[in-house]
Amino acid sequence: MGIVLKNILAVIPAGDKDEVRETTVYIEGNRIAALGQKPEGFQEEKVIDGKDKLVIPGLVNCHTHSYMAFMRNVADDLSFMDWLFGTIDPIEQQMTDEDTYWGACLAIIEMMKSGTTCFNDMQMNIHQTTRAVKESGMRAVISRGLIGSGNDEAGQMRLRQAYEERDGAKGCDRLSFMLGPHAPYTCDDGFMRVVSEEAKKNKMRIHVHLSESVSEIQQIQEKYGCSPIEMADKNGLFDVPAIAAHCVQITDKDIDILKEKNVSVVTNPASNMKLGNGFAPVPEMLEKGVNVCLGTDGAASNNSLNMFHELSLLTLIHKGTHKTPQCISAREGFRIATINGAKALGLEEEIGSIEEGKKADLAILDLNTPSLTPRNNLIAGLSYSANGSEVETVIIDGKIVMENRKILTMDEELVYKKINEIIARMGLDKKEY
Amino acid sequence: MGIVLKNILAVIPAGDKDEVRETTVYIEGNRIAALGQKPEGFQEEKVIDGKDKLVIPGLVNCHTHSYMAFMRNVADDLSFMDWLFGTIDPIEQQMTDEDTYWGACLAIIEMMKSGTTCFNDMQMNIHQTTRAVKESGMRAVISRGLIGSGNDEAGQMRLRQAYEERDGAKGCDRLSFMLGPHAPYTCDDGFMRVVSEEAKKNKMRIHVHLSESVSEIQQIQEKYGCSPIEMADKNGLFDVPAIAAHCVQITDKDIDILKEKNVSVVTNPASNMKLGNGFAPVPEMLEKGVNVCLGTDGAASNNSLNMFHELSLLTLIHKGTHKTPQCISAREGFRIATINGAKALGLEEEIGSIEEGKKADLAILDLNTPSLTPRNNLIAGLSYSANGSEVETVIIDGKIVMENRKILTMDEELVYKKINEIIARMGLDKKEY
Repeated sequence: MGIVLKNILAVIPAGDKDEVRETTVYIEGNRIAALGQKPEGFQEEKVIDGKDKLVIPGLVNCHTHSYMAFMRNVADDLSFMDWLFGTIDPIEQQMTDEDTYWGACLAIIEMMKSGTTCFNDMQMNIHQTTRAVKESGMRAVISRGLIGSGNDEAGQMRLRQAYEERDGAKGCDRLSFMLGPHAPYTCDDGFMRVVSEEAKKNKMRIHVHLSESVSEIQQIQEKYGCSPIEMADKNGLFDVPAIAAHCVQITDKDIDILKEKNVSVVTNPASNMKLGNGFAPVPEMLEKGVNVCLGTDGAASNNSLNMFHELSLLTLIHKGTHKTPQCISAREGFRIATINGAKALGLEEEIGSIEEGKKADLAILDLNTPSLTPRNNLIAGLSYSANGSEVETVIIDGKIVMENRKILTMDEELVYKKINEIIARMGLDKKEY
Repeated sequence: MGIVLKNILAVIPAGDKDEVRETTVYIEGNRIAALGQKPEGFQEEKVIDGKDKLVIPGLVNCHTHSYMAFMRNVADDLSFMDWLFGTIDPIEQQMTDEDTYWGACLAIIEMMKSGTTCFNDMQMNIHQTTRAVKESGMRAVISRGLIGSGNDEAGQMRLRQAYEERDGAKGCDRLSFMLGPHAPYTCDDGFMRVVSEEAKKNKMRIHVHLSESVSEIQQIQEKYGCSPIEMADKNGLFDVPAIAAHCVQITDKDIDILKEKNVSVVTNPASNMKLGNGFAPVPEMLEKGVNVCLGTDGAASNNSLNMFHELSLLTLIHKGTHKTPQCISAREGFRIATINGAKALGLEEEIGSIEEGKKADLAILDLNTPSLTPRNNLIAGLSYSANGSEVETVIIDGKIVMENRKILTMDEELVYKKINEIIARMGLDKKEY
């Protein structure tokens, strides 16, 4: 289908920064065929009038757990280990395959409605998430969360499942896969080596949680005499392209390792604050040239999957901690939420910016909204004043998946109903907060 | 008009905390006539079906500069003094009366659309703001920003203007007024005494900026040998009920003064981070029993007037700075954004909670939204996952001012158009960011 976004303001890369300028975007098949000039033989099938609109590259949510969307607001104001082992784990024990499916559906709806067109997911049940991704038209990179010890059977079984699930998802090129050793406190050094060897052998990327809480640092220091990042490095995790979520409690030496090994770091400001883990040294990592990208983490710890909320946190909190308004500008933040994420996922040739030849993963925002009025400095508007509800229409892989805020590929009301039923079945609707 | 919100989930005070329960809200004239039981002789004129809805008390934005909404995104990533004196002041020099009117209109639209039903404003031109408040159906408390030195004519003139403007706004009981000595770095000690005497004489409350930036602290320390809060206290500002915005850079002794003198503190987390001023010690103030309320500050420094955004910041950032997830719970945050604000404005008998006999200032949210699904722990949802766009209908003083996200009292598109024209006239649309 040939879609035209006619005379529309667009955020477009201009050298090492983005600029906002008016253009016409031609979409052919799943790609941006041209900007400005109509390509020869282009068949217009759908024209979207760009008057009072802004088109941006879809945001890239680089760390989440989509199935957890049904656990939104179930475990608030708890310490990290109480949250994970005292509340979330017991819920996961009662969770069915269908629950994870509906959770993923809810997550995808929330992300689409706030302009995210690709997410990097760590999962317990890939089948159901890939099902939701396929049906919804979303783009995703998925890792099964692997837990294990040395060469134990449990770890091996999860690895086999990860491969089976990957193979079962063939035929959808909006889906790709990584290996996901969960964290240094759930995978021992032997298992980390098993996984990194697998990644090398199968040319897969790695997605791991690292240095999230103070208790993790203490635990790993006691067990291995080094930091979680050093532990991961020693056991080969960074010998393939890796994406490390959190990196809150890290040293200068850790940052040097992350840079040297080209590790992409996903910062998750809301989750890190909410669980009392603190603030990742994002300005320091950027200063040293680490590729920092942005993620929401799961809805059980954020509790939102809205990347506009996360972008505003990213561009505000470090100005507060570093007591300087020049720390992480709106422009820098916007790149962290888009092209840096694409790089982290190895998709920078395909998504993350509006350029000819790239996949058409786009969000169209309504400018007749208070948060984007006036229209000067719209990139500042995206970072500091937008809340995500300005997103009106979303295109992923050249297909319109949301139009005028209506999701075209899923039954929203059914999803909300199913999620409320899951929570009632588990008795979580009665739980005193 | 008798409005009924039928079988609706509502956030209702239950002792010292709020709970969510289903009820029916009867509105008669400008007040909540009853909860649950239909009052005798009640005439139903409009019924709103509460299915899949949540009604909350309208949020109270305790510190803003509404006219500045037209300056959204014009002065980003600058230090406080450069921001104020280098950018904002020169814009204010070219600003006409009409500009401040359209700015206030934009601010009111943004606030209504995100569930705010009352705001506390510091102003350069009260006439135009009171005009926008009257037309829009909003509730507001307004102070002219007073600047002066001793008994100088400039300060006296501004005081006279403040009174004239107040008197000119008679006949609208959604409007009330305070005296607004701007800040210790723009009002000297003599002028502070003049204003506090006026406040005592006329039984008016005081609205002042205090201890916002490090440079303010240094300046006041050099000039008076004390902190801005001590300076304000010494010059009588706290001898009437006072509301102090910011209080970021404060000492334990300052907190004791604020508590002893019953000063309400408005925290403005986004603005304080964005200008590099840091984090106010909100948990410490709450611990000592200071009445803390919440504000957005102006759109030139936030850049949003969305109180849901501010509430999420309030309930997240202190968990990060204090490294504990128990710091400022969702429940506590919600009270700070509602009833604490009402108290600060002296309006706690009238607004800030859903109770029989109070003014009907209400926001109705759509629960069929991803951010409020599932429906367990909706107060956590309001603080952590809502973004304000869930607000569907707003009632102020018993009148529906927004219905299904359409503002009924103002021409939204005209306001956006006028604001873009102001920015173009000032050449700010061309300014390189």
